[in-house]
Amino acid sequence: MRNGFLVKIVIAILILVISSFSYASDVGDPLPSWREGPVKRSIMEFVQAVTDQSSRDFVPRDNRIATIDNDGTLWLEQPLYTQGIFMLSRYQTLAKQHKKWPKITENNLTKQNIERLLVTTSSGMTVAEYETIVKEWLNQARNPRYKRPYTELVYQPMLEVIKYLHENDFDVYIVSGGGQEFMRAFALPAYGITPDHVIGSTEKTRYGYLGGKPMLLKMPQPLFVSDNEGKPEAINLFIGKKPIIAFGNSDGDRQMLEWTQSSPGKHLMLLVHHDDPVREYAYDTKSKIGTFSASLMKEAEANNWQVISMKEDWRVIFPFEMNQANE
Amino acid sequence: MRNGFLVKIVIAILILVISSFSYASDVGDPLPSWREGPVKRSIMEFVQAVTDQSSRDFVPRDNRIATIDNDGTLWLEQPLYTQGIFMLSRYQTLAKQHKKWPKITENNLTKQNIERLLVTTSSGMTVAEYETIVKEWLNQARNPRYKRPYTELVYQPMLEVIKYLHENDFDVYIVSGGGQEFMRAFALPAYGITPDHVIGSTEKTRYGYLGGKPMLLKMPQPLFVSDNEGKPEAINLFIGKKPIIAFGNSDGDRQMLEWTQSSPGKHLMLLVHHDDPVREYAYDTKSKIGTFSASLMKEAEANNWQVISMKEDWRVIFPFEMNQANE
Repeated sequence: MRNGFLVKIVIAILILVISSFSYASDVGDPLPSWREGPVKRSIMEFVQAVTDQSSRDFVPRDNRIATIDNDGTLWLEQPLYTQGIFMLSRYQTLAKQHKKWPKITENNLTKQNIERLLVTTSSGMTVAEYETIVKEWLNQARNPRYKRPYTELVYQPMLEVIKYLHENDFDVYIVSGGGQEFMRAFALPAYGITPDHVIGSTEKTRYGYLGGKPMLLKMPQPLFVSDNEGKPEAINLFIGKKPIIAFGNSDGDRQMLEWTQSSPGKHLMLLVHHDDPVREYAYDTKSKIGTFSASLMKEAEANNWQVISMKEDWRVIFPFEMNQANE
Repeated sequence: MRNGFLVKIVIAILILVISSFSYASDVGDPLPSWREGPVKRSIMEFVQAVTDQSSRDFVPRDNRIATIDNDGTLWLEQPLYTQGIFMLSRYQTLAKQHKKWPKITENNLTKQNIERLLVTTSSGMTVAEYETIVKEWLNQARNPRYKRPYTELVYQPMLEVIKYLHENDFDVYIVSGGGQEFMRAFALPAYGITPDHVIGSTEKTRYGYLGGKPMLLKMPQPLFVSDNEGKPEAINLFIGKKPIIAFGNSDGDRQMLEWTQSSPGKHLMLLVHHDDPVREYAYDTKSKIGTFSASLMKEAEANNWQVISMKEDWRVIFPFEMNQANE
């Protein structure tokens, strides 16, 4: 009897302690860089609904899948994709030793020249060597407008979303048209997303041996392109489950959002709208990169996808603005 | 003061309760179907070393990657791969309505006929429809020797390994030459492995719309084959990290074990050797399916890969033997 009583007391104390811990973590605003409004509210209400065991919209941990585009959704993509800047820079370095190579700059990025960049800068080395090359470039390269490393030009509000989703036991995947190995080189330190959660366009690799040691050689043949229709195809290939929340910013994300919308339970689709010419860029329909077409806006409105106004919804865009505010 | 004292008591009780829980789970043998011996010891010592924070071999959770072959390693593969039996059965059912189709049986599985099976039984429907077809077949099909569903012909000792690795915060992936979507249809109930951890050979899919709803159509074109060199290539594509433990049973697993061995820290490679003609099959070098060649055995011995003798190391092979023992 006495033992039974003690056990009950211990259990009661445990419940009190545990519930006070979870209360404490509920108190702070998980999305401080987001202005109050319908978009922020839609994210928080969605996460609360799918994680609340008593809610009819509750989703078990294993099915809490979030997919997020990279260029223009997690970091800057103007005036050129960062991977494009990397390839141009690497090509120009290598070209010093190959006098016959044609001159390629950001002004003559034809399809043929982009293929030439891919072959010369992103194949013919091992996967591990490529990772080192990308990391070294990211360490020294600076964006000319912001005078900062590209890995600092990530969107603070989206970093908060990733952290918030992780804290609520979501599997958060990057699903991008960008190169998978390029993104893997920085996704963990920049976003807290591990290589197994980075889905992108890929080329074939070939297993072989160098001095008796196994290695994977990056080949110049594409395996698949994870953009447009390729996004839901890649989501099925890598994850095998439908996302319940998806973030994008351009026409290339349309099918990923449609796929998310087709999941049977509660789901949420959001699009970052680049409408801030002062702190970032305002481009949408006008840009070749990250086009947000009128037809995408129409589909968003018809389906109640949330359109995130950078100008209105984001108090802060880059992490360094927070540091400046604190300085 | 009084509050501080109470908090200390609560913490002390918490520590006692929590440590008694973890002690309790340490007490039982996590691998009861394995006979004591060098192979069982190698698995348990490995897991203890990489999960012990004070060990020089400690590996953080994010890098605890295990890759396990399916056919012949997690379940029966004789006298024919289960997926082969499924395709034959499905083909013969469909052929009743297609009088011009050539007769295909397990005796004329030429390359051309296998391709015909793949195209007719595993493409031309949506991914969701295929999953339903496979599940329905698995529900009604019975293995003629054991008179049981194929999903019960899994290896009990390997189920214990998966559970043991999961409990020790490993990411456990299936890496198989078998079809990814075929395995996804049963991996969760049979092994406790979710679709995002099932890597196999894949065909292309195509995103489209049916009555305005998005769908993914299974196409008859292969995307890649996850066997031999394809295993480390697929591991890089899907996981982007090297495994530290890998289980296989045949020549098709050689490169996966080499790749695991090339990881910088502690690692463990194991091969199931089918040498039990009474309870299962004894085949190795003699079989076209799951060949364990003399050269693989030589490589295993030279590199200290553990060879698991089904006959000697496994007290029980199938889960139903445990039920029989308890009956």
